[in-house]
Amino acid sequence: MDTITASGRPFKVRRARLDDVAAIMALMADDPLGATREPADPAPYEAAFHEIEADPNHFLAVVTQGDVVVGTLQLTIIPGMSRGGTKRLQIEGVRIAGHARRLGLGVAVMEWAHEFGVCHGARLAQLTSDRQRPDAHRFYERLGYVPSHVGFKRPLMGD
Amino acid sequence: MDTITASGRPFKVRRARLDDVAAIMALMADDPLGATREPADPAPYEAAFHEIEADPNHFLAVVTQGDVVVGTLQLTIIPGMSRGGTKRLQIEGVRIAGHARRLGLGVAVMEWAHEFGVCHGARLAQLTSDRQRPDAHRFYERLGYVPSHVGFKRPLMGD
Repeated sequence: MDTITASGRPFKVRRARLDDVAAIMALMADDPLGATREPADPAPYEAAFHEIEADPNHFLAVVTQGDVVVGTLQLTIIPGMSRGGTKRLQIEGVRIAGHARRLGLGVAVMEWAHEFGVCHGARLAQLTSDRQRPDAHRFYERLGYVPSHVGFKRPLMGD
Repeated sequence: MDTITASGRPFKVRRARLDDVAAIMALMADDPLGATREPADPAPYEAAFHEIEADPNHFLAVVTQGDVVVGTLQLTIIPGMSRGGTKRLQIEGVRIAGHARRLGLGVAVMEWAHEFGVCHGARLAQLTSDRQRPDAHRFYERLGYVPSHVGFKRPLMGD
């Protein structure tokens, strides 16, 4: 468990537990895009939790203030051949509760994630952000991210 | 090992071996962007190969025509919490030799990758492509990919 600070207040970052799943679901549903695509049934989230937990290259994190989960993100370390065998830190599912965002918690969480990546040998952080999230794009650019790529998605069901 | 077909000709797709690393390096260097960022020293690529090989959630593939490596790509299965616990197929480092691209091998390789994803439970394929590759973007859109996201990258060295 690590302590991070935003607006002078302490928060903890730790690996998520099964009993955090409901709080993670709530953060994902409390979002303009998530509201339309996150179901209420916990079963698929719990199944995903167990799969993430089983592989040490995935780290599903929660950020807490006291006993309350106020943020989550998922990190994956991806070794790769391109760019001279560069290892990547892939960041998915970043969600910070609105009141904590206003304290600057997002920046503190991302800086923590970058340290996690460096500690695991990653030399490149990468993430994609929906084109419908211009505020998020400004946030990532302030953190040093470059929008150099187009992020493509394709459903695989029904092939 | 799987057989795929492009322009009526058979190709094989299989897991890369250590003795394929030189051919993969050559494919990565034979590229307008790769030419500037892929070093000649095989050591970091071999180290990356061993790390990829050690985790069953990563699959570094080569495509061969007879004994010759004519393509490569890397697949990673990423279980995740968002979108109702959707498992993702992450595709990185797609490189197909020029003469084989003209035979339509790229399409056949991507269709093979999608089957790999479905077999491993993935419901969403995702990749990013540099903004400087408009031909690649048209290729992915023809395959059903939607450019819904901005792909952000950030170096982690020197933090």
